[in-house]
Amino acid sequence: MKHNSYFDGKVQSLELHTENGVATVGVITPGQYTFGTSTQEKMVITAGSLRVKLPDQDWQTVMSGEFFVVDKNVSFVVEAEQDVAYLCYYF
Amino acid sequence: MKHNSYFDGKVQSLELHTENGVATVGVITPGQYTFGTSTQEKMVITAGSLRVKLPDQDWQTVMSGEFFVVDKNVSFVVEAEQDVAYLCYYF
Repeated sequence: MKHNSYFDGKVQSLELHTENGVATVGVITPGQYTFGTSTQEKMVITAGSLRVKLPDQDWQTVMSGEFFVVDKNVSFVVEAEQDVAYLCYYF
Repeated sequence: MKHNSYFDGKVQSLELHTENGVATVGVITPGQYTFGTSTQEKMVITAGSLRVKLPDQDWQTVMSGEFFVVDKNVSFVVEAEQDVAYLCYYF
């Protein structure tokens, strides 16, 4: 199983294969982080809430149980005030 | 962030702190595994489905979006036929 670690371990994830393709479950600890996508991503927040800045959009707060979609080949910014858990699908 | 690895890496998890206390997000790869609890646990399946044998109960299948609760100080058996993602709360 692949274990990913970003930003000095402040964001980590575990990879799995689902009927919807590759996905990761992960944890984001408090802080602000910029990510780049190489595929379209659907990020479901499973615990906590996450502030998200998608390209050309205002900041939004995504609550537990909600999700957001990020286009391919863009960068986006997330901000966590407490630990956040997510499940991310790659398309 | 704590990264846990069990059964030669076939089950791995990442720890987080939520408003409901400590939790882990994790992945279970195909296989059958026996776990022991030191606290009560609430396990939410977030991707895939998991066969679960709780003490004194029949096997049950827990689907994505569903959860099961395990008492403190017992052991229970899980069986995955494909990768399963979960979010587990410890009480």
